Amino acid sequence: MAQRRYLLDEDAIPRNWYNVAADLPSMPPPPLNPGTGQPIGPDDLSPIFPMGLIQQEVSAERWIPIPDPVRAIYSMWRPTPLYRALGLEAALGTTCKIFYKYEGVSPSGSHKTNTSVPQAFYNREEGVTRLATETGAGQWGSALSFACRLFEMECKVYMVRASYDQKPYRRSMIRTWGAEVVASPSPDTHAGRDILEADPASTGSLGIAISEAVEDAATRDDTKYALGSVLNHVLLHQTIVGMEAREQLAMAGADPDVLVGCVGGGSNFAGLVFPFLADKAAGKDIRIVAAEPAACPTLTRGHYGYDFGDTAKTAPLLAMHTLGHGFVPPAIHSGGLRYHGMAPLVSHLVHTGLVEARAYKQSECFAEAVRFARAEGIIPAPEPSHALRAVVEEVERAREEGVEKTILFNLCGHGNFDMAAYDAYLSGEMVDTELPQAELDIAAAELEGLPALP
Amino acid sequence: MAQRRYLLDEDAIPRNWYNVAADLPSMPPPPLNPGTGQPIGPDDLSPIFPMGLIQQEVSAERWIPIPDPVRAIYSMWRPTPLYRALGLEAALGTTCKIFYKYEGVSPSGSHKTNTSVPQAFYNREEGVTRLATETGAGQWGSALSFACRLFEMECKVYMVRASYDQKPYRRSMIRTWGAEVVASPSPDTHAGRDILEADPASTGSLGIAISEAVEDAATRDDTKYALGSVLNHVLLHQTIVGMEAREQLAMAGADPDVLVGCVGGGSNFAGLVFPFLADKAAGKDIRIVAAEPAACPTLTRGHYGYDFGDTAKTAPLLAMHTLGHGFVPPAIHSGGLRYHGMAPLVSHLVHTGLVEARAYKQSECFAEAVRFARAEGIIPAPEPSHALRAVVEEVERAREEGVEKTILFNLCGHGNFDMAAYDAYLSGEMVDTELPQAELDIAAAELEGLPALP
Repeated sequence: MAQRRYLLDEDAIPRNWYNVAADLPSMPPPPLNPGTGQPIGPDDLSPIFPMGLIQQEVSAERWIPIPDPVRAIYSMWRPTPLYRALGLEAALGTTCKIFYKYEGVSPSGSHKTNTSVPQAFYNREEGVTRLATETGAGQWGSALSFACRLFEMECKVYMVRASYDQKPYRRSMIRTWGAEVVASPSPDTHAGRDILEADPASTGSLGIAISEAVEDAATRDDTKYALGSVLNHVLLHQTIVGMEAREQLAMAGADPDVLVGCVGGGSNFAGLVFPFLADKAAGKDIRIVAAEPAACPTLTRGHYGYDFGDTAKTAPLLAMHTLGHGFVPPAIHSGGLRYHGMAPLVSHLVHTGLVEARAYKQSECFAEAVRFARAEGIIPAPEPSHALRAVVEEVERAREEGVEKTILFNLCGHGNFDMAAYDAYLSGEMVDTELPQAELDIAAAELEGLPALP
Repeated sequence: MAQRRYLLDEDAIPRNWYNVAADLPSMPPPPLNPGTGQPIGPDDLSPIFPMGLIQQEVSAERWIPIPDPVRAIYSMWRPTPLYRALGLEAALGTTCKIFYKYEGVSPSGSHKTNTSVPQAFYNREEGVTRLATETGAGQWGSALSFACRLFEMECKVYMVRASYDQKPYRRSMIRTWGAEVVASPSPDTHAGRDILEADPASTGSLGIAISEAVEDAATRDDTKYALGSVLNHVLLHQTIVGMEAREQLAMAGADPDVLVGCVGGGSNFAGLVFPFLADKAAGKDIRIVAAEPAACPTLTRGHYGYDFGDTAKTAPLLAMHTLGHGFVPPAIHSGGLRYHGMAPLVSHLVHTGLVEARAYKQSECFAEAVRFARAEGIIPAPEPSHALRAVVEEVERAREEGVEKTILFNLCGHGNFDMAAYDAYLSGEMVDTELPQAELDIAAAELEGLPALP
């Protein structure tokens, strides 16, 4: 029978993360201090991040060693399986080969633990005993609470109000691992109180929750801040996904023509594709596709320029595609992928043409998620269902062109905590939204007066 | 670093199921026709089961080949990992070696797909196009809906009302895989209507739901019935768990002194321990422990004798430990493991002393589940948390005796759909119940006049 799963032993867990900065033709413009507008240095970041992570953020070294204690924890679920999607190929009636890297086998059910564990580790090494963070759909908050538990640290999670109300079981998971979780905007911070004063019914946003967590970290000596996506060091930690996938594809005798990932802040996408990017930059014929929601179309419709990472304008100015730091996604949008900005590295790659971006409506993504669940067994999280939609487009394109492609995508998490969204889809009650132009006009106004890209 | 996971390639999926009947010193008394009280033959079962499964039910062959299409589907998640519980050992401060076989990696998140897939297969081979079944906590119903989808069969699930209301996301999962699910007792069957007439607020029981599903199957030409535990052929299909574990323990250079599983109908327990049972029967020093809930203490407090498999008395009389076919478990009991009876093979092993049984209250089990989640990352389903409690007792006993034991248990599923129960536990709102003696008196009265064991 045809082989379906490609497994690696614990010994095959990579010993280094791969830093794409070493191989890119050009780098994105640097982050700026939100107060002075000057490029930030390590001292600007040290109140909220440990030096071990700051060094990774600015490193130009190609390989950055993974500490042994982190590898030991990775071995709880890594290496993750690479699957040949035999069931989906049959359901689509395609001669394309479809592979997926499955990150849903991690304790919290997504790729997020790949970075929460090293982030907790480097903080603990420098004597930090408590971390503060934000979470949207809850995948990052649960991943960080898991990591903090392993290193015997406290953890406080500011969870976007819309998700806090809609996803009680992600909250329970965070509590099971011993962390504290509050709805954001919360009365616990100045940033939260300001928002609540202006709008007591605010459903929150990642931008707001980041402001709360950063304030928490900046105002307590025992606490630092942890971010689940966007920054260079976070994307760096995720590169183990693509490195393992390369090895597993070699076992399968396959060479990918197309790579696909979904994007919110960009980390699972970057984790899969960065280890293939040097080949592409050197001229190899690989298409790389980033799939995002039409309700939060950062890459396809956002402004490319400097913007604040958070709503309260306390986080650095980043060079990125953005919908404006005041952006509040529609509460009916079911999955994650709703940050107003994007990882500067990913924005830069889209800007320079190495990566294509596409936006999809949530119901067309759920249609693919249900087809996938029925063909492959695994129920995908809403986020990678955007990648699935792009994969099926690639299959259709290959059929039209009469070619056979090898496609690899990142199934970055399972949907066990998203069944309410499946219910809405199956009951015909799922509503699609596209971002109104008026929102983009508001964003453009917000960005006026901010530094221009060099 | 110490090895944590023991993985096997697809080639290592067993080619045969192991039939313990070939090696037992004695067999349990035969099932009886519920009408005549005479031992049943294949013709009694053919209205509700396909001949392929009936033959397995009565087979004395040691090895029963696994059909290739079933092995191909098993390869979606099998072989499952064997874990060395390094985190739990550290948390307990023990020098015992603890291993667990993790069945939560299956599409539906439990061991149940090990039998749902072959059951659907054998039915499809004989032209059956629709299956009816019951489900309690929802693990079996979701597993069967998954299997039916793969063989393009219809599926109807009668879900115990208490779980239907408390676990909406298991329902959503069943619907995602395309099956129909109704609360039991339902108005769709005579059995359901009779119960609803007597008690419109009935929270249901597995015995009632079985009656509904059996009636559905017996009254439709296109439909057969499928059971998720209890029967010999179901236990047979689960033996791949123990066979893989044997191979993986050999990789780890370990030999178990104690085997532990939780029991409801008995199938995950049997799947783990049967492949080790011939060694024990031949005199090897292995302790085998079955862990059940104090709220449904079938093995530890039930009557051992003939009883009906269902409430409407349409299923065969089985020789088993039983709380009476009218038993309705307390709705506050959070997990599965609430069938009134027990697999005749497991009952026989307890009766003959090869297996020990112990009962635990749910809050002491959840305490262990939370400790495990914090040490090992995986959040256990409530059912195997009973096994966990027994494992910790074994560790305590080993410490008292000053010995080092090697313990293997079956972590038969994850708790992603049980977070409401975790919430109740963490909030101090979990209530423990033990079965009142009065219920056992009622059961004894119910059993009066039924055939005696030979």
